[in-house]
Amino acid sequence: MKNFKFLLLSACVALAACTTQKSSEQQISDKGTKWNWDKGTIVVETPERPAGQTSVIELALPKMETVRVGFVGLGMRGPGAVERFTYIPGVEIVALCDYEKERAENCQKYLQKASMPKAAVYSGEKGYEELCKRDDIDLVYIATDWLHHFPVAMCAMENNKNVAIEVPSAMDLKECWALIDMSEKTRKHCMILENCCYDWFEMNTLNMAQQGVFGEVVRAQGAYIHNLEPFWDHYWKNGENDKLGWRLEYNMKHRGDVYATHGLGPVAQALDIHRGDRMKTLVAMDTKSVVGKALVEERTGQACKNFRNGDHTTTLIRTENGKVIEIQHNVMTPQPYNRLYQLTGTKGFANKYPIQGYALDAKQMSASGVAPEVDNLNSHSFMPKKDMEALVEKYQHPILKKYGEMAKEVGGHGGMDFIMDSRLVYCLQNGLPLDMDVYDLAEWCCLAELGELSMDNNCAAVAFPDFTRGEWNKVKGYKHAYASPEEESVAMEKAKAFTAKLKEKGAAEWAAATKEEIK
Amino acid sequence: MKNFKFLLLSACVALAACTTQKSSEQQISDKGTKWNWDKGTIVVETPERPAGQTSVIELALPKMETVRVGFVGLGMRGPGAVERFTYIPGVEIVALCDYEKERAENCQKYLQKASMPKAAVYSGEKGYEELCKRDDIDLVYIATDWLHHFPVAMCAMENNKNVAIEVPSAMDLKECWALIDMSEKTRKHCMILENCCYDWFEMNTLNMAQQGVFGEVVRAQGAYIHNLEPFWDHYWKNGENDKLGWRLEYNMKHRGDVYATHGLGPVAQALDIHRGDRMKTLVAMDTKSVVGKALVEERTGQACKNFRNGDHTTTLIRTENGKVIEIQHNVMTPQPYNRLYQLTGTKGFANKYPIQGYALDAKQMSASGVAPEVDNLNSHSFMPKKDMEALVEKYQHPILKKYGEMAKEVGGHGGMDFIMDSRLVYCLQNGLPLDMDVYDLAEWCCLAELGELSMDNNCAAVAFPDFTRGEWNKVKGYKHAYASPEEESVAMEKAKAFTAKLKEKGAAEWAAATKEEIK
Repeated sequence: MKNFKFLLLSACVALAACTTQKSSEQQISDKGTKWNWDKGTIVVETPERPAGQTSVIELALPKMETVRVGFVGLGMRGPGAVERFTYIPGVEIVALCDYEKERAENCQKYLQKASMPKAAVYSGEKGYEELCKRDDIDLVYIATDWLHHFPVAMCAMENNKNVAIEVPSAMDLKECWALIDMSEKTRKHCMILENCCYDWFEMNTLNMAQQGVFGEVVRAQGAYIHNLEPFWDHYWKNGENDKLGWRLEYNMKHRGDVYATHGLGPVAQALDIHRGDRMKTLVAMDTKSVVGKALVEERTGQACKNFRNGDHTTTLIRTENGKVIEIQHNVMTPQPYNRLYQLTGTKGFANKYPIQGYALDAKQMSASGVAPEVDNLNSHSFMPKKDMEALVEKYQHPILKKYGEMAKEVGGHGGMDFIMDSRLVYCLQNGLPLDMDVYDLAEWCCLAELGELSMDNNCAAVAFPDFTRGEWNKVKGYKHAYASPEEESVAMEKAKAFTAKLKEKGAAEWAAATKEEIK
Repeated sequence: MKNFKFLLLSACVALAACTTQKSSEQQISDKGTKWNWDKGTIVVETPERPAGQTSVIELALPKMETVRVGFVGLGMRGPGAVERFTYIPGVEIVALCDYEKERAENCQKYLQKASMPKAAVYSGEKGYEELCKRDDIDLVYIATDWLHHFPVAMCAMENNKNVAIEVPSAMDLKECWALIDMSEKTRKHCMILENCCYDWFEMNTLNMAQQGVFGEVVRAQGAYIHNLEPFWDHYWKNGENDKLGWRLEYNMKHRGDVYATHGLGPVAQALDIHRGDRMKTLVAMDTKSVVGKALVEERTGQACKNFRNGDHTTTLIRTENGKVIEIQHNVMTPQPYNRLYQLTGTKGFANKYPIQGYALDAKQMSASGVAPEVDNLNSHSFMPKKDMEALVEKYQHPILKKYGEMAKEVGGHGGMDFIMDSRLVYCLQNGLPLDMDVYDLAEWCCLAELGELSMDNNCAAVAFPDFTRGEWNKVKGYKHAYASPEEESVAMEKAKAFTAKLKEKGAAEWAAATKEEIK
């Protein structure tokens, strides 16, 4: 009997020790994400695809002769977008919406300048809902603060609108999956407005990579390194008691790379992510917060005990095919702007910051169809200016050939914003898949929460969910879609004709309005 | 009773289920390292410090009027070291050793050139054992292939010699701990010959960091990125059947950053590692091997199924104080040489490759005691050449002031090797702690095996062992040791006098030898 009691006791002790072990397996993060440990790796739950829903990979919609646009969010990035769209043939700007009425009204001046008819104005907290309900809008272009990207996009798609969303387009995994399901259900485009995919160096280098100039690209880098010290106080504040503004507050409350897409977008395209390869494992590591804390303390006059976002965050990603992507984020410390764009290939190398350079040996240069000026050209240093110019000339991206010059006139981050908008409208008018789909959006934006999970668990490895739910290997190689020259010019003619008419109408309206004022 | 049995039974079932769980915890790597999972983190076993053994932190030995040196390994890096030592006052080159006798004999020419007496020559597989047994040697300088660094160093310390070991000075954790225990037991110096700690930009920047020019340094980078394609066939081959040479073969057999110290050494000093901070957690991620495999296949004519070392390896390290260190290794792909040296501070920024630059705003520049030429100086771009020169001038490292000019004459990787050797001899002659101790050696070299452990377990986090066994926070701040000007000049006088005498003797001997030849 004694023995029994003793055995029982010791067994129970062991049992207790053991159950604490077990209970640690199924976990839920403070963002509500369910995950568990698989040895050292964090595996997050992947929701089943709802019945009757299919993927939107290479989704193409019927050609739109004209693209009727509604803009939501006209504070920092929005007004520039409105102005850019007035330069794109076959576009009608139907509606303007902002929380603050005068900011929306203000954008009419771009329409007047382009002699286009006034747009309807919506404002207030729910103004976008009315805009989305209109039946004469094809595309809702969203440039609100980060937290409103998601609700506006969901509302627009629910109302059968295509959406284009500023970055970051989804703030966590829940939003990623919801946008995917909504796009799959409604068969509407849900595009991430990642303008850095359209910058000159990135586009030409992407073209070189796709033509094999660098051999097999095995590693790529990107970043958003931008000291925002002069900008923090320009972000919208929600009333007098809001001392931080939405962006600083968001950084204070959230760990992880919350602004990864400028760095990740261009290299994800170069590595054919979900077009033959996929991001498989992530680890993230950040520094403590020093500058972030100080910014809050200056503005609140109180001690900041917990600033979640480290001053500098580094994320490493390994792909299914054994490639590595490194992404960095630092908006806090004083240093030159840097997106760290870099491709490392088995036969060549491209690097954008702080100096643009390519490294190829003479053999590889000739193999790429360019005769090097320097015959002893080797890959141990960047190639001389003349050789680099010859290489860039040969591999200039067709999209730059088409839009580059006009983009530099219209502007918007040196022109890349206009190229992005022009491609978006071009693909809609020609009934083509967009350059970036909702899976790109999810893959590029999920770094924030996955990195937070990693770092909150001592920098553990985290397995990427497959946002395509099994179809990452269906398309072979990332491509921009093009219509045939014939189709293209037909669409362009219609677009120009429409815009010409629209401007007649607009000119008349504005003239009348001015007469009214004079009276 | 029945209840008891039932309870007992169910308890035992649970217990069984639980022990299977437990048994998966204790693991042994193929390098014989014992480790276990702590949630997502790999924790390696830290051996107890043997009884009666104490740390060698700040170990200082009695002043040596002259430093009597034996060199082991005279293939690639060794001969240059022999020549450099002939320029350092108070040094006697007693013995030369290499596996191949003629390579050792060859180095006599440097002694002749400096009119110093011939040294004793040792050769063959165990030649170094005879050298270590001599009672007239203070320092054994080891520049063999990687695999022989350890056995030679152990043999030398066992024979009560101080050792200086080329990098990497230990290939795995077992070797790290054995060198630490041997140094602690014998109270002999065991120094890692990390020459990059003595390069100009690194030394001046270290000085700036120590003076607070960058505020608090929260992040640092380093790397060894060097396409070795032209060099692979110059590494020693062990007979005709050795098609790869020792270095390529080592990379083929071992995963992880096998050559981390050029990148890690300088930044570890800037971050006061084991002088107030310590490396706590590591994660590593590599690309697959493409170029490595191809190199083996070219040389063997056979398919290379498994090349362990990825073409590019990235390691992230978080410190106890919340700093981050990033280290990269790539000796495979074509790209410009790059050690990625970079310090990111809360008030300033330093970057060495591909262009040397500092970023400080005007306020911080003035606070650092330099009046900027450009009054609108801001940290959003690198400072202009003139301002940078002024900053570097003010913060020129005292060690560069002392040895810089002569170093450029003598040479050795642009002079940094000579500065390293001069500092080593200076510290021994003045009875000071060396610039790098055996714990630096272990911390910088352990990245290879810890990274291998991480990557072989899907890039899991790995906890660093505390090689100081509890004393990482004893010294506050990394410092170079200096004697008083008086002591210093006394030591230097003695050293010069000794060398003068030695050269008289040497000149006579070489004259006699030449007469002999003529006869």
